[in-house]
Amino acid sequence: MRRVAIVGVGHTDFMFDSPKTEVEMFAEAAMDAINESNLKPKDIQAINCGNGLGDFSEGQIMMQSYIADDLGCFNVPATRFEGACASATIGIRDAAMWVASGYYDIVLAGGTEKATAMGTPLATRTFAMGHDSRYESPAGMTFPGFFGMLAHLYSSRYNISLEKLKEQMAMVSVQSHEYGVRNPHAQFKKEISVEKVLSGFMVASPLQLLDCCPFSDGAAAVVVASEEVAKKLTNKPVYIVGTGQASSGKMSAQYKYLPRIRAREVSVKQAYDMAGLGPEDIDVCELHDCFSIASIIAAEGLGLAEYGKAGDLWEKGEMRIGGKIPINISGGLKSKGHPIGATGASQTYEIVKQLRGELVDQGRQVDGARVGLVDTLGGDGIICNLILKAD
Amino acid sequence: MRRVAIVGVGHTDFMFDSPKTEVEMFAEAAMDAINESNLKPKDIQAINCGNGLGDFSEGQIMMQSYIADDLGCFNVPATRFEGACASATIGIRDAAMWVASGYYDIVLAGGTEKATAMGTPLATRTFAMGHDSRYESPAGMTFPGFFGMLAHLYSSRYNISLEKLKEQMAMVSVQSHEYGVRNPHAQFKKEISVEKVLSGFMVASPLQLLDCCPFSDGAAAVVVASEEVAKKLTNKPVYIVGTGQASSGKMSAQYKYLPRIRAREVSVKQAYDMAGLGPEDIDVCELHDCFSIASIIAAEGLGLAEYGKAGDLWEKGEMRIGGKIPINISGGLKSKGHPIGATGASQTYEIVKQLRGELVDQGRQVDGARVGLVDTLGGDGIICNLILKAD
Repeated sequence: MRRVAIVGVGHTDFMFDSPKTEVEMFAEAAMDAINESNLKPKDIQAINCGNGLGDFSEGQIMMQSYIADDLGCFNVPATRFEGACASATIGIRDAAMWVASGYYDIVLAGGTEKATAMGTPLATRTFAMGHDSRYESPAGMTFPGFFGMLAHLYSSRYNISLEKLKEQMAMVSVQSHEYGVRNPHAQFKKEISVEKVLSGFMVASPLQLLDCCPFSDGAAAVVVASEEVAKKLTNKPVYIVGTGQASSGKMSAQYKYLPRIRAREVSVKQAYDMAGLGPEDIDVCELHDCFSIASIIAAEGLGLAEYGKAGDLWEKGEMRIGGKIPINISGGLKSKGHPIGATGASQTYEIVKQLRGELVDQGRQVDGARVGLVDTLGGDGIICNLILKAD
Repeated sequence: MRRVAIVGVGHTDFMFDSPKTEVEMFAEAAMDAINESNLKPKDIQAINCGNGLGDFSEGQIMMQSYIADDLGCFNVPATRFEGACASATIGIRDAAMWVASGYYDIVLAGGTEKATAMGTPLATRTFAMGHDSRYESPAGMTFPGFFGMLAHLYSSRYNISLEKLKEQMAMVSVQSHEYGVRNPHAQFKKEISVEKVLSGFMVASPLQLLDCCPFSDGAAAVVVASEEVAKKLTNKPVYIVGTGQASSGKMSAQYKYLPRIRAREVSVKQAYDMAGLGPEDIDVCELHDCFSIASIIAAEGLGLAEYGKAGDLWEKGEMRIGGKIPINISGGLKSKGHPIGATGASQTYEIVKQLRGELVDQGRQVDGARVGLVDTLGGDGIICNLILKAD
């Protein structure tokens, strides 16, 4: 199969209560990506759009068709992918395959979501539809509750006191906000302190308010092209060299793997194997930090830290720029924001920018980054990973 | 790219108010497809699941993950496709590409929906989210209303009196019910008459009750495999020789093409070109008859009838077994039922059965059928087509 590259990226501001519709936000990010690719809408051969709950937020299903029309990409195949928070990452992985196979040369992929309109003020309850509605939802499972449970299990399994773990988790959030301040698209541009995290109100023990990412409105998109086309369009192609995806079913039932997430280990191994790379080759990573404990668990599942040790690394600054492995230098879901169906595209946008070396002016460039990893968790059972590599 | 075949198919009964969940219905159809393929769940490398509105019907998003788990397909990539009624067809097309590319050898694809739970008794209003929520929904657009409008436009454009058109439309429904009686999976197993159609209550002028398909609960699934694998598994592989997909945005705005549907013409041309075949090569067709007028419009858009002439052909029996081109011998959406996200997989199931010659006992086999066409319309702007060919 052919090599595949990302040749352009676009990203809206992430915010509470955007005045734009999901179609409009996607179109905004997409036009930036198309323009940056030196393309016109008519050059786009297919569109993959991630979206979680457009019906609940806007009364809109199959928005991808209206997106194609609004963009001026008339009569192309436009496909919606729904894998909860991993929707856009799955759509990008799929786009990469269609291009790699030789069927298409140029595909637009991304995601969009008005998560703050998703049944506000009941967004957490609405989004709990990403749990198993037969077994987990009737038991009252929500995502803060589930990740709170994982934090308790983590504390117990690795014999780290809850007090210590809470400090480490707080450090994760503090770091994310520190970098989010420098990201012009971030929803929260303010620094926080460990003390502030630990004095916040309890959401779901042991997770306090600032252990939790927000819901956000926003969109992001990338243009995926064959190597041959990419070389004509840009002198900074970023190649998609590995992809992985796995569904583990309801995580709450996988007691042997908790607080690890089996789907992540399966998915990232696919991506590493496909790329012929390993965790030691990753220069920069955007991982799914829906909660501070989720960052710690993800870094371990991706092989970027030993099991039970990721919190130490955050505490020691090893996940910062200049550290062992810079993680979530965008501000992550925590500070940049989390528009469900757009998040994977936003993570991909960030890694492309890092690998192109374009974040110097924002004061958050990882020097010499050549290989980046995207990690997105969908609901309580889907993982999708991408490994990107500078030319 | 490699040749790709369907090696097994499965189909639940279609009905009102199924006692099963969407996950359970999919698993039922999928296990039949897997067993028929002489495979085990562990052989499935990926799952593509079409679903329209699981959140509204069951409070469930990302059901594909729970489907994978329930089937025993642990940690495979499981992906949900949402393109309204075309969801499953899009998922099957995508599966065909992943196998054609050589990335996977065996992919399970299908769809599931509890459409009768979709906000009953307001299902039509709920499903109107498949219109553009910015422009069409606020104007009160629903699908019966939209297709009623198309019928009026059709009558006017082709200078066919509304009285005559209503008789032709009635013939479409009568034929569908006649064959539906013989389909063990059909929701409605009773014959109707032209008089009965014309004396039904008016839903949206000129469409009367029996011009409209029902909402249904059900699922269908197929196993897609590479040619090499297929030849080991079955002596009746049915090849996917052509696929097409297009999104035309909101149809109501495409006055130049109404009452034709531009996306269909683009999509089916892709499929014909890919297959190296034309309308004259099609032996049997399942097309998207959400309303009787939709059948007439679809047959013309697919090239199976001249514009303005399809109603004549139904009236003359040319769309029956033994006629020019047998259409919707399953009973179609009208009589077999229409579980939104499952419909495309159900149509594919039917064509596979026809091309294998397995419907003799049901009294609805199209003798000698070698090439079949699937046509699915999603919402008011997405078309997906598949062309299948017996070995």
